[in-house]
Amino acid sequence: MKKADLLMIPGPTPLPEPVREVMGRPAIGHRSAEFKEVLKRVFPKLQWIFGSKNQVFLYTASGTGAMEASMSNTLNPGDRVLALVNGVFSHRWAEIAKTLGLQVETLDVPHGEAHTPAMLQEYLEARKETDYKAVLLNHSETYTGVLSPIRQLVSVIRQTHPQTLIILDAITSLGATEFSLDEWDIDVAVSGSQKGFMLPPGLSFLALSERAWQAHQHCQQPGYYFNFTRYQKAQLENTTPYTPATPQILGLDVALTLMQEEGLEAIIRRHQTLSRMTRAGVKAMGLEPFVREDALASPSVTSFLPPAGISVDAVRSGLKKRFGIVIADGQKELKGKIMRIGHLGHVSEREVLTTLSALEAVLTELGHAVPTGAGVAAAIEASQNTHTQTPAQKAVSHA
Amino acid sequence: MKKADLLMIPGPTPLPEPVREVMGRPAIGHRSAEFKEVLKRVFPKLQWIFGSKNQVFLYTASGTGAMEASMSNTLNPGDRVLALVNGVFSHRWAEIAKTLGLQVETLDVPHGEAHTPAMLQEYLEARKETDYKAVLLNHSETYTGVLSPIRQLVSVIRQTHPQTLIILDAITSLGATEFSLDEWDIDVAVSGSQKGFMLPPGLSFLALSERAWQAHQHCQQPGYYFNFTRYQKAQLENTTPYTPATPQILGLDVALTLMQEEGLEAIIRRHQTLSRMTRAGVKAMGLEPFVREDALASPSVTSFLPPAGISVDAVRSGLKKRFGIVIADGQKELKGKIMRIGHLGHVSEREVLTTLSALEAVLTELGHAVPTGAGVAAAIEASQNTHTQTPAQKAVSHA
Repeated sequence: MKKADLLMIPGPTPLPEPVREVMGRPAIGHRSAEFKEVLKRVFPKLQWIFGSKNQVFLYTASGTGAMEASMSNTLNPGDRVLALVNGVFSHRWAEIAKTLGLQVETLDVPHGEAHTPAMLQEYLEARKETDYKAVLLNHSETYTGVLSPIRQLVSVIRQTHPQTLIILDAITSLGATEFSLDEWDIDVAVSGSQKGFMLPPGLSFLALSERAWQAHQHCQQPGYYFNFTRYQKAQLENTTPYTPATPQILGLDVALTLMQEEGLEAIIRRHQTLSRMTRAGVKAMGLEPFVREDALASPSVTSFLPPAGISVDAVRSGLKKRFGIVIADGQKELKGKIMRIGHLGHVSEREVLTTLSALEAVLTELGHAVPTGAGVAAAIEASQNTHTQTPAQKAVSHA
Repeated sequence: MKKADLLMIPGPTPLPEPVREVMGRPAIGHRSAEFKEVLKRVFPKLQWIFGSKNQVFLYTASGTGAMEASMSNTLNPGDRVLALVNGVFSHRWAEIAKTLGLQVETLDVPHGEAHTPAMLQEYLEARKETDYKAVLLNHSETYTGVLSPIRQLVSVIRQTHPQTLIILDAITSLGATEFSLDEWDIDVAVSGSQKGFMLPPGLSFLALSERAWQAHQHCQQPGYYFNFTRYQKAQLENTTPYTPATPQILGLDVALTLMQEEGLEAIIRRHQTLSRMTRAGVKAMGLEPFVREDALASPSVTSFLPPAGISVDAVRSGLKKRFGIVIADGQKELKGKIMRIGHLGHVSEREVLTTLSALEAVLTELGHAVPTGAGVAAAIEASQNTHTQTPAQKAVSHA
């Protein structure tokens, strides 16, 4: 039997049926009155999800395009920037910055860890006089499955460098964990459609502060396609400066409405539950999570090591061939060393239980002894703990 | 009754059913073996449509992104370029070039006309010593509906400036008229998915010569997202450097197969027929084409003036409300002054006859006397002339 694969990777994520329906619609003119109405609905919903009263720019490009835009529109060649690196995606900040002719300094921590506020404070205290034009951060490092304590890191940065631009990759965190550009005092945050937004790839989003907008005014060569000024002007008139990916935007309209109906708190709680379930499940099957500290576990993706003597390929291939379930390999240096289960976007507890059950079957088949039903049982227990949290407990767990 | 609108605009164009079907499919991982197979099929088909033995880069971005990429990857700030301007889209070349810090010179002809080889020859003969790093051209100027004699213009450029980069906007011409990057000795050509490719917007394509690739090696700041080197390397491995718009790429695979099945000659002949039919039809209804010379009429779009005393708005709104047919207004300075019927991509004679019939009904209703059936009759006659052309006649008409 041929069934569509169940994608349990950290993006692209499964798609809601109403999104698929609009993606396949007949063509619509991007300058039509109907499409302007769509954009008029979409823009405020983007502000809602980014927690910002300012315009959020809508790019037809991947998240990497928006990452480049966040620097090419606010900085000038020769500017010094500090990149906090704890994986391949946070390292991409440094790579892009170099390509743009910026002076890049990186502060690295081992893969699987996050920068602590204390460490960053010490680092910056010793560099009070350094004129960092921007600090580049990553919220959920998809390479490892680490969620960094962004709000606390931002507070630390503001103590010593109150005017530096704080630029955040929120690609796999937005719509999966708490975030507010305005309240958190972040200057630029970017995300992509194929993540928490439950859409196919093709769009990226860029939210910005008044400070970032002012920096843009002093930017000498902001380029054309990603130019903030052109988006600002066009979006005020509920249009886009260039032809946008209309199917994904119709989908965005639908998906953001679904998200508003579910409610941000519920969405965040769901992702937290899915993360805890997956983590508890793999642990109970005797697998070692790659991210050691529970508190750093990303709500979007859980990474773990294969059992001794069993290859990542064998596990992934078993899941795919027998069950039509796709989980991710590690990337680059971690290829073949870890596996990653994505639980981002249009994913419910059902898919997590499905994946853990299938994983048990595959591991058993490959000779790794799993106590019968242990993964699923642990996941169910973890989900009950989350569901029965009191508001006070929740406040603690969010802190 | 609610029916989907018939889009008769110069992009986005109507979509074939099989394209719509794949656009609405469940999510697919862009790093999966299945998707690599798709890309492996797509890349050679892109080379086929661009008439090039070299790699064609596939961007998730609008055509404007590819236009910027064509210069940001091959030129350096301060380089002198010559832009041939005959409308808003050819003028965009000059705009982007300025944004990139290039020294821009424009050679303008009135809107509705094209640069002649003789005029360009005279211009360049007088500037033999000028070191133009690039000449920027537009094939089908969608603002007016003019098709420029690119092959002849290129020959003229090569006489005086053999090594200058020739960079072409083929956005609304590719898949609608003859073109070959290699045979025509063009260095960069760009196009977009929502045009002759019969797809929704979201992708753009960039074909390049060995000369352009060499220029890229001397480019100091080629940027990141559109960086040729990254696409070259990734595409050799049948992947993309960043997350691509997967639905549109699945659609591209389908659409290019449809195009190969129809055959390039047949596609070009079809567009030529549709253009002649539309032009003959509007003329027979007493409307004045904006492009005076038949030889300059674009195969993708036909523009014409409204009858005296009748507004463009009234005509467009009549077509849309009563018949669900969308034709385009003029843009910028030509807004309200001309109308444009697109006949690009997934459009057949049927849609042209439909549009002309409806146009007759609307014009009559608005008080413009049209001899009954004149537009349709003229269109049918024009189509018969095209269908019955001998090879010799065809050769002449292509000259």
